Amino acid sequence: MQRSIDLAEVVKLNHGYARSIDEDALEIWPGFFAEDCLYRITTADNYARGYEAGLMYADTRAMLEDRVKSLRIANVYERHRYRHILGMPAVSEASGADICSETSFVVIRIMRDGTLTVFATGKYVDRMRHDESGRLVFSERIVVCDNSNVDALLAIPL
Amino acid sequence: MQRSIDLAEVVKLNHGYARSIDEDALEIWPGFFAEDCLYRITTADNYARGYEAGLMYADTRAMLEDRVKSLRIANVYERHRYRHILGMPAVSEASGADICSETSFVVIRIMRDGTLTVFATGKYVDRMRHDESGRLVFSERIVVCDNSNVDALLAIPL
Amino acid sequence: MQRSIDLAEVVKLNHGYARSIDEDALEIWPGFFAEDCLYRITTADNYARGYEAGLMYADTRAMLEDRVKSLRIANVYERHRYRHILGMPAVSEASGADICSETSFVVIRIMRDGTLTVFATGKYVDRMRHDESGRLVFSERIVVCDNSNVDALLAIPL
Repeated sequence: MQRSIDLAEVVKLNHGYARSIDEDALEIWPGFFAEDCLYRITTADNYARGYEAGLMYADTRAMLEDRVKSLRIANVYERHRYRHILGMPAVSEASGADICSETSFVVIRIMRDGTLTVFATGKYVDRMRHDESGRLVFSERIVVCDNSNVDALLAIPL
Repeated sequence: MQRSIDLAEVVKLNHGYARSIDEDALEIWPGFFAEDCLYRITTADNYARGYEAGLMYADTRAMLEDRVKSLRIANVYERHRYRHILGMPAVSEASGADICSETSFVVIRIMRDGTLTVFATGKYVDRMRHDESGRLVFSERIVVCDNSNVDALLAIPL
Repeated sequence: MQRSIDLAEVVKLNHGYARSIDEDALEIWPGFFAEDCLYRITTADNYARGYEAGLMYADTRAMLEDRVKSLRIANVYERHRYRHILGMPAVSEASGADICSETSFVVIRIMRDGTLTVFATGKYVDRMRHDESGRLVFSERIVVCDNSNVDALLAIPL
Protein backbone atom coordinates (compact mmCIF):
# COMPACT_ATOMS: atom_id res chain seq x y z
CA MET A 1 0.00 0.00 0.00
CA GLN A 2 1.33 3.42 -0.90
CA ARG A 3 0.69 5.79 1.99
CA SER A 4 1.24 9.03 0.06
CA ILE A 5 -1.43 8.12 -2.47
CA ASP A 6 -3.80 7.27 0.37
CA LEU A 7 -3.33 10.66 1.96
CA ALA A 8 -4.14 12.57 -1.24
CA GLU A 9 -7.25 10.46 -1.74
CA VAL A 10 -8.37 10.91 1.87
CA VAL A 11 -7.84 14.67 1.64
CA LYS A 12 -9.92 14.79 -1.53
CA LEU A 13 -12.74 12.74 0.00
CA ASN A 14 -12.79 14.93 3.11
CA HIS A 15 -12.94 18.14 1.14
CA GLY A 16 -15.56 16.90 -1.31
CA TYR A 17 -17.71 15.90 1.65
CA ALA A 18 -17.33 19.30 3.34
CA ARG A 19 -17.99 21.15 0.11
CA SER A 20 -21.26 19.30 -0.46
CA ILE A 21 -22.51 20.75 2.84
CA ASP A 22 -21.01 24.23 2.50
CA GLU A 23 -22.31 24.61 -1.05
CA ASP A 24 -25.75 23.34 -0.06
CA ALA A 25 -25.42 20.41 -2.43
CA LEU A 26 -26.76 17.99 0.16
CA GLU A 27 -28.18 15.67 -2.49
CA ILE A 28 -24.66 14.48 -3.34
CA TRP A 29 -23.64 14.16 0.32
CA PRO A 30 -24.86 10.55 0.79
CA GLY A 31 -22.75 9.57 -2.22
CA PHE A 32 -19.60 9.94 -0.12
CA PHE A 33 -20.67 6.88 1.88
CA ALA A 34 -20.75 3.18 1.10
CA GLU A 35 -24.27 1.71 0.78
CA ASP A 36 -23.71 -0.23 3.95
CA CYS A 37 -22.20 2.38 6.22
CA LEU A 38 -22.22 3.90 9.67
CA TYR A 39 -22.72 7.61 10.21
CA ARG A 40 -22.94 8.89 13.73
CA ILE A 41 -22.66 12.28 15.44
CA THR A 42 -21.66 12.13 19.08
CA THR A 43 -19.86 14.16 21.73
CA ALA A 44 -16.28 13.80 22.93
CA ASP A 45 -17.52 12.80 26.39
CA ASN A 46 -19.80 10.07 25.08
CA TYR A 47 -17.18 8.88 22.63
CA ALA A 48 -14.55 8.59 25.37
CA ARG A 49 -16.97 6.56 27.50
CA GLY A 50 -17.80 4.23 24.64
CA TYR A 51 -21.50 5.20 24.58
CA GLU A 52 -23.22 4.18 21.40
CA ALA A 53 -25.92 6.83 21.61
CA GLY A 54 -25.43 9.91 19.52
CA LEU A 55 -27.05 13.03 18.16
CA MET A 56 -27.61 11.46 14.77
CA TYR A 57 -27.36 7.90 13.58
CA ALA A 58 -27.64 6.13 10.25
CA ASP A 59 -26.40 2.75 9.11
CA THR A 60 -27.28 2.76 5.45
CA ARG A 61 -26.81 5.28 2.67
CA ALA A 62 -30.59 5.18 2.14
CA MET A 63 -31.09 6.60 5.63
CA LEU A 64 -28.77 9.47 4.77
CA GLU A 65 -30.77 10.15 1.62
CA ASP A 66 -33.97 10.20 3.69
CA ARG A 67 -32.33 12.62 6.06
CA VAL A 68 -31.57 15.01 3.21
CA LYS A 69 -35.15 14.81 1.93
CA SER A 70 -36.47 15.64 5.41
CA LEU A 71 -34.13 18.59 5.65
CA ARG A 72 -35.32 19.94 2.33
CA ILE A 73 -38.94 19.80 3.48
CA ALA A 74 -38.42 20.99 7.04
CA ASN A 75 -35.91 23.77 6.68
CA VAL A 76 -37.56 26.15 4.31
CA TYR A 77 -37.30 29.11 6.64
CA GLU A 78 -34.14 28.56 8.62
CA ARG A 79 -31.51 28.35 5.94
CA HIS A 80 -28.06 28.92 7.37
CA ARG A 81 -24.80 28.56 5.56
CA TYR A 82 -21.85 26.66 6.97
CA ARG A 83 -18.14 26.71 6.29
CA HIS A 84 -15.92 23.77 7.20
CA ILE A 85 -12.22 24.10 7.74
CA LEU A 86 -10.42 20.78 8.00
CA GLY A 87 -7.09 19.71 9.35
CA MET A 88 -4.82 17.25 7.61
CA PRO A 89 -6.02 13.64 8.04
CA ALA A 90 -3.96 11.45 10.32
CA VAL A 91 -4.05 8.17 8.43
CA SER A 92 -3.43 5.26 10.78
CA GLU A 93 -2.58 1.66 10.08
CA ALA A 94 -5.12 0.15 7.76
CA SER A 95 -6.62 -3.27 8.44
CA GLY A 96 -7.27 -5.25 5.29
CA ALA A 97 -8.78 -3.10 2.54
CA ASP A 98 -9.91 -0.43 4.98
CA ILE A 99 -8.16 2.87 5.60
CA CYS A 100 -8.58 4.58 8.97
CA SER A 101 -8.05 8.25 9.67
CA GLU A 102 -8.84 11.08 12.02
CA THR A 103 -9.36 14.67 10.86
CA SER A 104 -9.95 17.79 12.94
CA PHE A 105 -12.73 20.14 11.86
CA VAL A 106 -14.08 23.55 12.69
CA VAL A 107 -17.49 24.57 11.36
CA ILE A 108 -18.46 28.23 11.19
CA ARG A 109 -22.15 29.08 10.92
CA ILE A 110 -23.24 32.10 8.92
CA MET A 111 -26.50 33.53 10.26
CA ARG A 112 -29.01 35.33 8.03
CA ASP A 113 -27.82 38.71 9.30
CA GLY A 114 -24.23 37.85 8.45
CA THR A 115 -23.08 37.06 11.97
CA LEU A 116 -20.39 34.39 12.06
CA THR A 117 -20.18 31.98 14.97
CA VAL A 118 -18.04 28.97 15.65
CA PHE A 119 -20.76 26.33 15.49
CA ALA A 120 -18.88 23.12 16.13
CA THR A 121 -15.39 21.72 16.50
CA GLY A 122 -14.23 18.17 16.78
CA LYS A 123 -12.76 15.32 14.82
CA TYR A 124 -13.95 12.87 12.23
CA VAL A 125 -13.05 9.28 13.07
CA ASP A 126 -13.26 7.52 9.73
CA ARG A 127 -13.01 4.16 8.09
CA MET A 128 -12.84 4.19 4.31
CA ARG A 129 -12.75 1.72 1.47
CA HIS A 130 -12.80 1.69 -2.31
CA ASP A 131 -16.19 0.90 -3.79
CA GLU A 132 -16.74 -1.26 -6.88
CA SER A 133 -15.89 1.63 -9.18
CA GLY A 134 -12.60 2.27 -7.34
CA ARG A 135 -13.75 5.44 -5.63
CA LEU A 136 -12.86 5.98 -1.96
CA VAL A 137 -15.98 6.21 0.27
CA PHE A 138 -16.71 6.22 3.97
CA SER A 139 -17.73 2.88 5.40
CA GLU A 140 -17.81 4.62 8.77
CA ARG A 141 -17.73 8.26 9.79
CA ILE A 142 -18.09 9.12 13.46
CA VAL A 143 -18.36 12.86 14.04
CA VAL A 144 -16.99 13.50 17.53
CA CYS A 145 -18.02 17.00 18.63
CA ASP A 146 -15.94 18.77 21.26
CA ASN A 147 -18.95 20.74 22.38
CA SER A 148 -21.88 18.96 23.97
CA ASN A 149 -24.48 21.64 23.25
CA VAL A 150 -24.51 21.16 19.51
CA ASP A 151 -27.65 18.98 19.48
CA ALA A 152 -30.18 21.73 20.02
CA LEU A 153 -28.95 23.49 16.93
CA LEU A 154 -28.39 20.52 14.72
CA ALA A 155 -30.22 20.79 11.44
CA ILE A 156 -27.70 19.79 8.81
CA PRO A 157 -25.09 17.06 8.71
CA LEU A 158 -21.65 17.77 10.06
CA MET B 1 -0.22 17.85 -16.97
CA GLN B 2 0.77 16.40 -13.63
CA ARG B 3 -2.01 17.04 -11.11
CA SER B 4 0.05 16.42 -7.96
CA ILE B 5 2.58 19.07 -8.94
CA ASP B 6 -0.25 21.49 -9.65
CA LEU B 7 -1.72 20.97 -6.20
CA ALA B 8 1.56 21.70 -4.41
CA GLU B 9 2.03 24.85 -6.48
CA VAL B 10 -1.53 26.01 -5.86
CA VAL B 11 -1.16 25.41 -2.13
CA LYS B 12 2.06 27.42 -2.09
CA LEU B 13 0.49 30.31 -4.01
CA ASN B 14 -2.53 30.35 -1.69
CA HIS B 15 -0.41 30.42 1.44
CA GLY B 16 2.02 33.00 0.15
CA TYR B 17 -0.93 35.23 -0.67
CA ALA B 18 -2.49 34.81 2.78
CA ARG B 19 0.82 35.38 4.52
CA SER B 20 1.37 38.67 2.71
CA ILE B 21 -1.85 39.94 4.32
CA ASP B 22 -1.39 38.35 7.75
CA GLU B 23 2.19 39.58 8.02
CA ASP B 24 1.21 43.08 6.86
CA ALA B 25 3.46 42.75 3.82
CA LEU B 26 0.79 44.20 1.54
CA GLU B 27 3.38 45.63 -0.84
CA ILE B 28 4.12 42.12 -2.12
CA TRP B 29 0.43 41.19 -2.34
CA PRO B 30 -0.15 42.50 -5.91
CA GLY B 31 2.76 40.35 -7.05
CA PHE B 32 0.63 37.24 -6.67
CA PHE B 33 -1.47 38.42 -9.62
CA ALA B 34 -0.83 38.56 -13.36
CA GLU B 35 -0.51 42.10 -14.73
CA ASP B 36 -3.76 41.65 -16.57
CA CYS B 37 -5.96 40.12 -13.90
CA LEU B 38 -9.36 40.16 -12.25
CA TYR B 39 -9.73 40.57 -8.49
CA ARG B 40 -13.19 40.83 -7.07
CA ILE B 41 -14.77 40.49 -3.62
CA THR B 42 -18.44 39.57 -3.65
CA THR B 43 -21.04 37.75 -1.56
CA ALA B 44 -22.31 34.21 -1.96
CA ASP B 45 -25.78 35.52 -2.79
CA ASN B 46 -24.54 37.84 -5.51
CA TYR B 47 -22.19 35.22 -6.87
CA ALA B 48 -24.98 32.63 -7.08
CA ARG B 49 -27.15 35.13 -8.98
CA GLY B 50 -24.36 35.98 -11.38
CA TYR B 51 -24.19 39.65 -10.37
CA GLU B 52 -21.04 41.37 -11.45
CA ALA B 53 -21.11 43.98 -8.72
CA GLY B 54 -18.89 43.40 -5.78
CA LEU B 55 -17.38 44.91 -2.67
CA MET B 56 -14.05 45.46 -4.35
CA TYR B 57 -13.01 45.28 -7.98
CA ALA B 58 -9.75 45.53 -9.86
CA ASP B 59 -8.76 44.34 -13.33
CA THR B 60 -5.08 45.17 -13.44
CA ARG B 61 -2.22 44.60 -11.05
CA ALA B 62 -1.61 48.36 -11.10
CA MET B 63 -5.05 48.90 -9.53
CA LEU B 64 -4.10 46.51 -6.75
CA GLU B 65 -0.89 48.43 -6.16
CA ASP B 66 -2.89 51.66 -5.93
CA ARG B 67 -5.20 50.00 -3.45
CA VAL B 68 -2.28 49.13 -1.19
CA LYS B 69 -0.94 52.70 -1.38
CA SER B 70 -4.35 54.07 -0.38
CA LEU B 71 -4.52 51.68 2.53
CA ARG B 72 -1.13 52.77 3.77
CA ILE B 73 -2.21 56.40 3.76
CA ALA B 74 -5.74 55.92 5.07
CA ASN B 75 -5.31 53.35 7.76
CA VAL B 76 -2.83 54.91 10.10
CA TYR B 77 -5.05 54.58 13.14
CA GLU B 78 -7.07 51.47 12.59
CA ARG B 79 -4.45 48.81 12.24
CA HIS B 80 -5.92 45.39 12.78
CA ARG B 81 -4.21 42.08 12.29
CA TYR B 82 -5.74 39.22 10.38
CA ARG B 83 -5.13 35.50 10.32
CA HIS B 84 -6.19 33.37 7.37
CA ILE B 85 -6.79 29.67 7.64
CA LEU B 86 -7.22 27.95 4.30
CA GLY B 87 -8.66 24.66 3.21
CA MET B 88 -7.08 22.43 0.62
CA PRO B 89 -7.62 23.72 -2.92
CA ALA B 90 -10.02 21.74 -5.07
CA VAL B 91 -8.27 21.89 -8.42
CA SER B 92 -10.73 21.35 -11.24
CA GLU B 93 -10.14 20.57 -14.89
CA ALA B 94 -7.88 23.10 -16.43
CA SER B 95 -8.67 24.68 -19.78
CA GLY B 96 -5.60 25.33 -21.89
CA ALA B 97 -2.74 26.72 -19.83
CA ASP B 98 -5.04 27.86 -17.03
CA ILE B 99 -5.57 26.05 -13.75
CA CYS B 100 -8.88 26.49 -11.89
CA SER B 101 -9.43 25.90 -8.22
CA GLU B 102 -11.66 26.66 -5.26
CA THR B 103 -10.33 27.07 -1.73
CA SER B 104 -12.27 27.62 1.50
CA PHE B 105 -11.07 30.31 3.85
CA VAL B 106 -11.74 31.63 7.33
CA VAL B 107 -10.30 34.98 8.38
CA ILE B 108 -9.96 35.86 12.03
CA ARG B 109 -9.60 39.53 12.96
CA ILE B 110 -7.45 40.52 15.91
CA MET B 111 -8.67 43.78 17.46
CA ARG B 112 -6.32 46.21 19.22
CA ASP B 113 -7.49 44.96 22.62
CA GLY B 114 -6.75 41.37 21.65
CA THR B 115 -10.32 40.30 20.97
CA LEU B 116 -10.55 37.67 18.27
CA THR B 117 -13.57 37.57 15.98
CA VAL B 118 -14.41 35.49 12.95
CA PHE B 119 -14.30 38.27 10.37
CA ALA B 120 -15.11 36.48 7.14
CA THR B 121 -15.59 33.02 5.69
CA GLY B 122 -16.02 31.95 2.12
CA LYS B 123 -14.20 30.53 -0.84
CA TYR B 124 -11.70 31.73 -3.37
CA VAL B 125 -12.69 30.92 -6.94
CA ASP B 126 -9.43 31.12 -8.83
CA ARG B 127 -7.93 30.92 -12.26
CA MET B 128 -4.15 30.69 -12.38
CA ARG B 129 -1.41 30.61 -14.97
CA HIS B 130 2.36 30.59 -15.13
CA ASP B 131 3.87 33.95 -15.93
CA GLU B 132 6.87 34.52 -18.22
CA SER B 133 9.27 33.57 -15.42
CA GLY B 134 7.41 30.30 -14.79
CA ARG B 135 5.84 31.41 -11.51
CA LEU B 136 2.19 30.56 -10.84
CA VAL B 137 0.04 33.71 -10.45
CA PHE B 138 -3.66 34.51 -10.27
CA SER B 139 -5.20 35.62 -13.54
CA GLU B 140 -8.50 35.71 -11.67
CA ARG B 141 -9.38 35.58 -7.98
CA ILE B 142 -13.00 35.98 -6.97
CA VAL B 143 -13.42 36.17 -3.20
CA VAL B 144 -16.91 34.83 -2.46
CA CYS B 145 -17.85 35.78 1.11
CA ASP B 146 -20.45 33.72 2.94
CA ASN B 147 -21.44 36.69 5.02
CA SER B 148 -23.06 39.68 3.35
CA ASN B 149 -22.20 42.22 6.05
CA VAL B 150 -18.47 42.21 5.42
CA ASP B 151 -18.47 45.40 3.32
CA ALA B 152 -18.86 47.87 6.17
CA LEU B 153 -15.73 46.52 7.77
CA LEU B 154 -13.64 46.03 4.70
CA ALA B 155 -10.32 47.77 4.91
CA ILE B 156 -7.77 45.25 3.74
CA PRO B 157 -7.81 42.70 0.93
CA LEU B 158 -9.20 39.27 1.63
CA MET C 1 17.44 17.51 0.10
CA GLN C 2 14.03 16.53 -1.22
CA ARG C 3 11.59 19.32 -0.41
CA SER C 4 8.38 17.30 -0.94
CA ILE C 5 9.45 14.71 1.64
CA ASP C 6 10.28 17.47 4.10
CA LEU C 7 6.82 19.01 3.73
CA ALA C 8 5.02 15.74 4.45
CA GLU C 9 7.19 15.15 7.51
CA VAL C 10 6.68 18.70 8.77
CA VAL C 11 2.91 18.41 8.30
CA LYS C 12 2.91 15.15 10.24
CA LEU C 13 4.96 16.61 13.09
CA ASN C 14 2.71 19.67 13.31
CA HIS C 15 -0.46 17.62 13.44
CA GLY C 16 0.88 15.10 15.92
CA TYR C 17 1.85 18.00 18.18
CA ALA C 18 -1.59 19.62 17.92
CA ARG C 19 -3.36 16.32 18.48
CA SER C 20 -1.44 15.67 21.69
CA ILE C 21 -2.95 18.87 23.10
CA ASP C 22 -6.44 18.52 21.64
CA GLU C 23 -6.72 14.92 22.80
CA ASP C 24 -5.42 15.80 26.26
CA ALA C 25 -2.42 13.51 25.78
CA LEU C 26 -0.05 16.11 27.20
CA GLU C 27 2.35 13.45 28.47
CA ILE C 28 3.50 12.76 24.91
CA TRP C 29 3.72 16.47 24.03
CA PRO C 30 7.35 16.97 25.22
CA GLY C 31 8.35 14.07 22.97
CA PHE C 32 7.88 16.29 19.92
CA PHE C 33 10.92 18.30 21.02
CA ALA C 34 14.63 17.60 21.00
CA GLU C 35 16.16 17.17 24.47
CA ASP C 36 18.05 20.40 24.02
CA CYS C 37 15.34 22.68 22.64
CA LEU C 38 13.75 26.10 22.81
CA TYR C 39 10.02 26.54 23.39
CA ARG C 40 8.68 30.01 23.78
CA ILE C 41 5.25 31.67 23.62
CA THR C 42 5.31 35.35 22.76
CA THR C 43 3.20 38.02 21.09
CA ALA C 44 3.48 39.36 17.56
CA ASP C 45 4.43 42.79 18.92
CA ASN C 46 7.21 41.45 21.11
CA TYR C 47 8.43 39.13 18.37
CA ALA C 48 8.60 41.98 15.85
CA ARG C 49 10.61 44.05 18.33
CA GLY C 50 13.01 41.20 19.01
CA TYR C 51 12.14 40.99 22.71
CA GLU C 52 13.24 37.78 24.32
CA ALA C 53 10.63 37.83 27.06
CA GLY C 54 7.59 35.70 26.53
CA LEU C 55 4.53 34.19 28.13
CA MET C 56 6.18 30.83 28.53
CA TYR C 57 9.77 29.73 28.18
CA ALA C 58 11.61 26.42 28.29
CA ASP C 59 14.99 25.41 26.95
CA THR C 60 15.08 21.70 27.68
CA ARG C 61 12.62 18.89 27.15
CA ALA C 62 12.79 18.20 30.89
CA MET C 63 11.31 21.65 31.56
CA LEU C 64 8.42 20.81 29.27
CA GLU C 65 7.85 17.58 31.15
CA ASP C 66 7.80 19.51 34.42
CA ARG C 67 5.30 21.90 32.92
CA VAL C 68 2.95 19.03 32.08
CA LYS C 69 3.24 17.61 35.60
CA SER C 70 2.36 21.01 37.08
CA LEU C 71 -0.64 21.28 34.80
CA ARG C 72 -1.89 17.88 35.89
CA ILE C 73 -1.72 18.90 39.53
CA ALA C 74 -2.99 22.46 39.19
CA ASN C 75 -5.79 22.16 36.69
CA VAL C 76 -8.09 19.66 38.28
CA TYR C 77 -11.12 21.91 38.16
CA GLU C 78 -10.69 24.02 35.05
CA ARG C 79 -10.44 21.44 32.34
CA HIS C 80 -11.11 23.00 28.97
CA ARG C 81 -10.79 21.35 25.60
CA TYR C 82 -8.96 22.91 22.69
CA ARG C 83 -9.05 22.37 18.97
CA HIS C 84 -6.17 23.43 16.75
CA ILE C 85 -6.58 24.11 13.07
CA LEU C 86 -3.29 24.51 11.24
CA GLY C 87 -2.32 26.01 7.94
CA MET C 88 0.16 24.43 5.58
CA PRO C 89 3.78 24.89 6.73
CA ALA C 90 5.87 27.30 4.72
CA VAL C 91 9.21 25.49 4.69
CA SER C 92 12.05 27.92 4.12
CA GLU C 93 15.64 27.31 3.20
CA ALA C 94 17.27 24.98 5.64
CA SER C 95 20.69 25.65 7.08
CA GLY C 96 22.76 22.53 7.60
CA ALA C 97 20.69 19.68 8.98
CA ASP C 98 17.97 21.99 10.28
CA ILE C 99 14.64 22.61 8.60
CA CYS C 100 12.86 25.93 9.18
CA SER C 101 9.16 26.56 8.73
CA GLU C 102 6.29 28.82 9.66
CA THR C 103 2.76 27.56 10.19
CA SER C 104 -0.42 29.54 10.91
CA PHE C 105 -2.69 28.31 13.66
CA VAL C 106 -6.10 29.00 15.12
CA VAL C 107 -7.03 27.51 18.49
CA ILE C 108 -10.67 27.22 19.50
CA ARG C 109 -11.45 26.79 23.19
CA ILE C 110 -14.40 24.68 24.26
CA MET C 111 -15.80 25.86 27.59
CA ARG C 112 -17.50 23.52 30.05
CA ASP C 113 -20.93 24.75 28.97
CA GLY C 114 -20.12 24.06 25.33
CA THR C 115 -19.44 27.64 24.30
CA LEU C 116 -16.81 27.88 21.57
CA THR C 117 -14.47 30.85 21.43
CA VAL C 118 -11.50 31.68 19.28
CA PHE C 119 -8.82 31.48 21.95
CA ALA C 120 -5.66 32.26 20.05
CA THR C 121 -4.33 32.80 16.54
CA GLY C 122 -0.80 33.18 15.35
CA LYS C 123 2.07 31.36 13.77
CA TYR C 124 4.58 28.78 14.81
CA VAL C 125 8.15 29.73 13.88
CA ASP C 126 9.99 26.44 13.93
CA ARG C 127 13.38 24.88 13.57
CA MET C 128 13.43 21.10 13.24
CA ARG C 129 15.96 18.33 12.99
CA HIS C 130 16.06 14.55 12.90
CA ASP C 131 16.94 12.95 16.20
CA GLU C 132 19.19 9.91 16.60
CA SER C 133 16.32 7.57 15.72
CA GLY C 134 15.60 9.51 12.52
CA ARG C 135 12.39 11.11 13.79
CA LEU C 136 11.76 14.79 13.04
CA VAL C 137 11.54 16.89 16.25
CA PHE C 138 11.46 20.57 17.14
CA SER C 139 14.79 22.02 18.16
CA GLU C 140 12.98 25.34 18.40
CA ARG C 141 9.30 26.30 18.42
CA ILE C 142 8.39 29.93 18.93
CA VAL C 143 4.64 30.42 19.28
CA VAL C 144 3.91 33.94 18.06
CA CYS C 145 0.40 34.92 19.17
CA ASP C 146 -1.47 37.59 17.23
CA ASN C 147 -3.39 38.57 20.33
CA SER C 148 -1.59 40.08 23.26
CA ASN C 149 -4.21 39.23 25.89
CA VAL C 150 -3.64 35.49 25.78
CA ASP C 151 -1.42 35.38 28.88
CA ALA C 152 -4.16 35.75 31.48
CA LEU C 153 -5.86 32.66 30.12
CA LEU C 154 -2.85 30.53 29.46
CA ALA C 155 -3.03 27.19 31.13
CA ILE C 156 -2.03 24.67 28.50
CA PRO C 157 0.68 24.72 25.86
CA LEU C 158 -0.15 26.20 22.48
